[in-house]
Amino acid sequence: MKLQYIIPGPMHKTSVGMEEVNRRLAKLQGWASAETEVTISTVSSGPASIESMYEEYLSVPGTAKNIIKAESEGHDATIVGCFGDPGLDGLREVSDKLVVGPAGASMGTAVTLGQKFSVVTVTDSIINGLEKLAWETGVYQKLQSVRAINLPVMEINKNHDLAVELLIKEGKKAIDKDKAEVLILGCMSMGFLDVADKMMEELGVPVINPSKVSLKFAEALVSSNLEHSKKGYMKPPKMENNKRIEDLFIK
Amino acid sequence: MKLQYIIPGPMHKTSVGMEEVNRRLAKLQGWASAETEVTISTVSSGPASIESMYEEYLSVPGTAKNIIKAESEGHDATIVGCFGDPGLDGLREVSDKLVVGPAGASMGTAVTLGQKFSVVTVTDSIINGLEKLAWETGVYQKLQSVRAINLPVMEINKNHDLAVELLIKEGKKAIDKDKAEVLILGCMSMGFLDVADKMMEELGVPVINPSKVSLKFAEALVSSNLEHSKKGYMKPPKMENNKRIEDLFIK
Amino acid sequence: MKLQYIIPGPMHKTSVGMEEVNRRLAKLQGWASAETEVTISTVSSGPASIESMYEEYLSVPGTAKNIIKAESEGHDATIVGCFGDPGLDGLREVSDKLVVGPAGASMGTAVTLGQKFSVVTVTDSIINGLEKLAWETGVYQKLQSVRAINLPVMEINKNHDLAVELLIKEGKKAIDKDKAEVLILGCMSMGFLDVADKMMEELGVPVINPSKVSLKFAEALVSSNLEHSKKGYMKPPKMENNKRIEDLFIK
Amino acid sequence: MKLQYIIPGPMHKTSVGMEEVNRRLAKLQGWASAETEVTISTVSSGPASIESMYEEYLSVPGTAKNIIKAESEGHDATIVGCFGDPGLDGLREVSDKLVVGPAGASMGTAVTLGQKFSVVTVTDSIINGLEKLAWETGVYQKLQSVRAINLPVMEINKNHDLAVELLIKEGKKAIDKDKAEVLILGCMSMGFLDVADKMMEELGVPVINPSKVSLKFAEALVSSNLEHSKKGYMKPPKMENNKRIEDLFIK
Amino acid sequence: MKLQYIIPGPMHKTSVGMEEVNRRLAKLQGWASAETEVTISTVSSGPASIESMYEEYLSVPGTAKNIIKAESEGHDATIVGCFGDPGLDGLREVSDKLVVGPAGASMGTAVTLGQKFSVVTVTDSIINGLEKLAWETGVYQKLQSVRAINLPVMEINKNHDLAVELLIKEGKKAIDKDKAEVLILGCMSMGFLDVADKMMEELGVPVINPSKVSLKFAEALVSSNLEHSKKGYMKPPKMENNKRIEDLFIK
Amino acid sequence: MKLQYIIPGPMHKTSVGMEEVNRRLAKLQGWASAETEVTISTVSSGPASIESMYEEYLSVPGTAKNIIKAESEGHDATIVGCFGDPGLDGLREVSDKLVVGPAGASMGTAVTLGQKFSVVTVTDSIINGLEKLAWETGVYQKLQSVRAINLPVMEINKNHDLAVELLIKEGKKAIDKDKAEVLILGCMSMGFLDVADKMMEELGVPVINPSKVSLKFAEALVSSNLEHSKKGYMKPPKMENNKRIEDLFIK
Repeated sequence: MKLQYIIPGPMHKTSVGMEEVNRRLAKLQGWASAETEVTISTVSSGPASIESMYEEYLSVPGTAKNIIKAESEGHDATIVGCFGDPGLDGLREVSDKLVVGPAGASMGTAVTLGQKFSVVTVTDSIINGLEKLAWETGVYQKLQSVRAINLPVMEINKNHDLAVELLIKEGKKAIDKDKAEVLILGCMSMGFLDVADKMMEELGVPVINPSKVSLKFAEALVSSNLEHSKKGYMKPPKMENNKRIEDLFIK
Repeated sequence: MKLQYIIPGPMHKTSVGMEEVNRRLAKLQGWASAETEVTISTVSSGPASIESMYEEYLSVPGTAKNIIKAESEGHDATIVGCFGDPGLDGLREVSDKLVVGPAGASMGTAVTLGQKFSVVTVTDSIINGLEKLAWETGVYQKLQSVRAINLPVMEINKNHDLAVELLIKEGKKAIDKDKAEVLILGCMSMGFLDVADKMMEELGVPVINPSKVSLKFAEALVSSNLEHSKKGYMKPPKMENNKRIEDLFIK
Repeated sequence: MKLQYIIPGPMHKTSVGMEEVNRRLAKLQGWASAETEVTISTVSSGPASIESMYEEYLSVPGTAKNIIKAESEGHDATIVGCFGDPGLDGLREVSDKLVVGPAGASMGTAVTLGQKFSVVTVTDSIINGLEKLAWETGVYQKLQSVRAINLPVMEINKNHDLAVELLIKEGKKAIDKDKAEVLILGCMSMGFLDVADKMMEELGVPVINPSKVSLKFAEALVSSNLEHSKKGYMKPPKMENNKRIEDLFIK
Repeated sequence: MKLQYIIPGPMHKTSVGMEEVNRRLAKLQGWASAETEVTISTVSSGPASIESMYEEYLSVPGTAKNIIKAESEGHDATIVGCFGDPGLDGLREVSDKLVVGPAGASMGTAVTLGQKFSVVTVTDSIINGLEKLAWETGVYQKLQSVRAINLPVMEINKNHDLAVELLIKEGKKAIDKDKAEVLILGCMSMGFLDVADKMMEELGVPVINPSKVSLKFAEALVSSNLEHSKKGYMKPPKMENNKRIEDLFIK
Repeated sequence: MKLQYIIPGPMHKTSVGMEEVNRRLAKLQGWASAETEVTISTVSSGPASIESMYEEYLSVPGTAKNIIKAESEGHDATIVGCFGDPGLDGLREVSDKLVVGPAGASMGTAVTLGQKFSVVTVTDSIINGLEKLAWETGVYQKLQSVRAINLPVMEINKNHDLAVELLIKEGKKAIDKDKAEVLILGCMSMGFLDVADKMMEELGVPVINPSKVSLKFAEALVSSNLEHSKKGYMKPPKMENNKRIEDLFIK
Repeated sequence: MKLQYIIPGPMHKTSVGMEEVNRRLAKLQGWASAETEVTISTVSSGPASIESMYEEYLSVPGTAKNIIKAESEGHDATIVGCFGDPGLDGLREVSDKLVVGPAGASMGTAVTLGQKFSVVTVTDSIINGLEKLAWETGVYQKLQSVRAINLPVMEINKNHDLAVELLIKEGKKAIDKDKAEVLILGCMSMGFLDVADKMMEELGVPVINPSKVSLKFAEALVSSNLEHSKKGYMKPPKMENNKRIEDLFIK
């Protein structure tokens, strides 16, 4: 099985650079089953990180390009490497293979582990967006709260200790005040911090690492021969008759 | 009051061309109050028309550019001229003035006129997207159905009679089978067809023309001194400290 | 366009008297578009003010009488001047023209401006009633809370400063504790206090003045050629065959 | 125990007259437990029957008067004898003793007997009203449908056979098409037709007679020492300090 | 009428013994109408008390046995004497007569007395289970909270004063913080403490005693000729053709 | 990783016998990853198959016994091999390791693949039970329908061709009439029929095989270091202080 993990922004051009990209690939490959080959790609132009809905939308065309390339190279599925699942419905319309969103995978998992879950994410600016995602995923009924540590994504990548401390603090509030029984880390950068196990130990509830879970979820789907529904995410009418994605955009 | 109506695609480069753009402006100005000045703009590069979520996302960056330009020219509000309200939350994050989405305005109106409403739209490919919009607008409870006439947008612009015939047919089904008491035309091109009054006469229920209603709704909001909530659509953290929208995108 | 604003009680017989009635008319006419003529009427017998569901019901027959008179005098729409929208469904059944309820208009507007709204109203005794209204309007999903300042309506009319102070205090709680992004003033007397703009400045979120917004909303509907659905609010069977409203009541 | 059943209209002045009033009292007394005394009253002025929300509102002041009189005469509870529970929240505000609404009692019972229920009522004109009642009663989740036989109330009282035939026909549709497992007769006149047992036999599901069930429900509540919550239905502020209900209405 | 109250565990073998069983029977008979004969039975093998879902499941086979015996002895209905309504749907499948669950009866009653209710129960370990019951009963919409006094069932039976004190304390929180207007005692042992009236006096809201209310509810249903829907709780296919319940279990 | 698949009934004593048990084990081992060891067990006494809620409850004590044995033998997780997830919450309370329910796993997966799903199951008698499961799993919002082929479980095991034919027929109705975009096979015996791929080909939507997906889901959870929440499924209070599960049951 061959999976692509797409970072939906030009991380390679940011201060954390290719080093961080490669660190993430190593993590992913380490989590993968023996029979899985993981590749990673970044989007050539796009948002440095995603902390708003507007940045989500900016990331979509570049991600689509990478998905189509990955498919042509024989990948079985791609993972959109941002917890906002930016543009997931649109990306699924234009793809021919499974596209996995980490929030969807994490929430679909969380609801099977407890009656109530919360998400702990980066900044207040994306709380409404994540609540919308819970509805889109169909699990809004069990979402107790989305809480933010209010530390920007780039800061998380640089200051791990502070991030971990704040995550445990907000996670505790989600459990005590909001009655969460399961927590989800609401940001992919959090997923590469090795913080979930530490939080589970401190807090006594399952903590879902979206980076790892979306990979394992993708493996489970591919090996179950499952893809997203083409009836639920229809090919854009203008792409029928073998038109290409480029034909949707008039320059 | 000065309002901009943005067509979120390069309609001027399509077969219907500037003539259709200007026809729409004339309609809008005709609907407006005496004290309102309406301007129209098209996005320079983008989707020819919007019949999928992917095309919605493609339209966002161009629309944002036009909104910011309109604000700098003293507009009080802009209307995103596609019934999918493409990227509305993101556009509201980056704008300083009111941004109106036609679906939001139409649905917010429909719920005050009856207990149950339906939307009649273009193609099956956007039904899921419009259901999501009803949830985002907060009125999902009253949405009975979204029905499609399955005629592409460009076809509607060319074959008015067929469009009207199909709209009446699907509208009737929405009333008889889905118990709709109010109908919404789910496409801005439908809004410029002069079909709503005809449908009301034939079907005996209110039929909301989103093109007209979003204009009147924008006028009502501006004259009530109301804008969208900056607490609900927060400025992207990276735009604080007077950073510009261009700073969100790394080329 | 000719609009009637009906005060659903004999305010002219209370201590605030015709002076307050006329002050409200002046406000309304001031808010109206140039092409709109506003008239005002009070119900001859009824509740002094409305702070309970029972008083709502008491107001309905008198309001119906005024609506029918207004229609016979050529009004295009009437606004029921109480935020409880008292008897709105019944009034719409017996009317031939648009009847607007301020809560419906305000809530239909609020949901288009943010993801979550709260209402700040007069007394605890009508909180359940307003929650029911949010459901009837179809927007219960977005209602975060109804909070009361617990100052009776007549007191609000006499002690503006205290009312404003309490409104800001409860509004702040709605934002901080209940996560409201938009506020609605849940009482028409509050709407004539000129408090909304002050609250917006202090609190940083849109504050909907129901008195003003219901007027602008009515103008928008009438100029869009929209009325409430006669399929949703059916003529009482006993009024078919040109029977009159009086025939519904056996003395 | 002493219970009053109030017919919220001047049935004694209609063509069915006191004979029907007395027939209903006999039925009620026959259904009651040995220790229960049932009285009946009609409202002196009001709607002949109730087939619209407007007629519901017309019935409220007269019903309130009868409730207060019944309380002064030592009744333990009153039943509002219309399935629309007209003005129930308002009536509960002004009463000192339990007030039972038949729809509430029937729906509260229905949900304990099956997972899905439907109501079969008189005319299409009150379907929206009954759906609202299901929400107010808190059981909207299990309501599958409200179906109407479209026979006016007075006709039901005169043409029993036709009513029974139509009830079985619509009841069958509710079971087969809407998946109802329990049916409720949505009109008090239906409750005095002796039709429920016949329908149960024909249709094989529980059929709730609201006239009988609201009586038995009232008995169960009174003997359990339960009344409606005065915190949920607060005394109108103007009635504090021993003010009377008459003080709410300015003539 | 003949009703059986089944204690779904071998209480007679616990420290409170047959004395408590008989005390409960006396209470029940005291609450019953003159025409009702109440019998009581305990399950021969099963959980000592029920404070978890697992213990609920353990109680089901024994309860089923008692139900079938009671039916053969001419009982009109049985009450499952645990507030968790353990196995209610399954028990209804295999029974030929009405089976009443106390939580269902109490919740079906609570929603008719106020707009919002809470349950005060024994231990945190069954809160999720009771929330599920509210959904099954169809009244989840009005459930404000389930609060636990965290005193085990056997302790409640021994230390009445402490139980009452804790119930009043948690009940007050449910009213003040969760806005409950009606309370339900969420445990049958609480129902035999004579605490409901005391709580009503202290707290000013209706407090439902499930032990008493399920009895009165059963009486009301039987005298209304109502049973649970055999369409909603179908006979297990393997029991068709007069197969017996024993045939479902292979030893 | 070591996983146990428990058949919650004595299949080895039925007509399909150990041969079918072993066939299922071979299937499961074939689906598993290279690093996974699968074991299978049957419950010694219990229901022959599960087609009712009552049979679900009968299966719980035996399943619990097998789970505890499996844990003592070093299994990392167990799968309850019935699509009703019988007793899942109770089983999770008494277990120390992950317990997976196939319905939960299948539904948690389905919601990530499309906006709307349906379940096709064996008999009408368990439709209500499966709807409850969708709510417990938190995904009720996306459940379009549960449809039954009305072929008993034992028949499915014997007459594969008929089962497949009926599954395709009902699946098609779920897609066409109920708008399902994803289907789930609602019975574990269906999962061992090799029918999912055939249905996908015929119907053009993802079809979830619960037998395979629950295995892959369990693998994904175990390799992600995730278990069900012990805060959501609390240890029964009587099992604290190292009491054993046997102590919950008084013989």
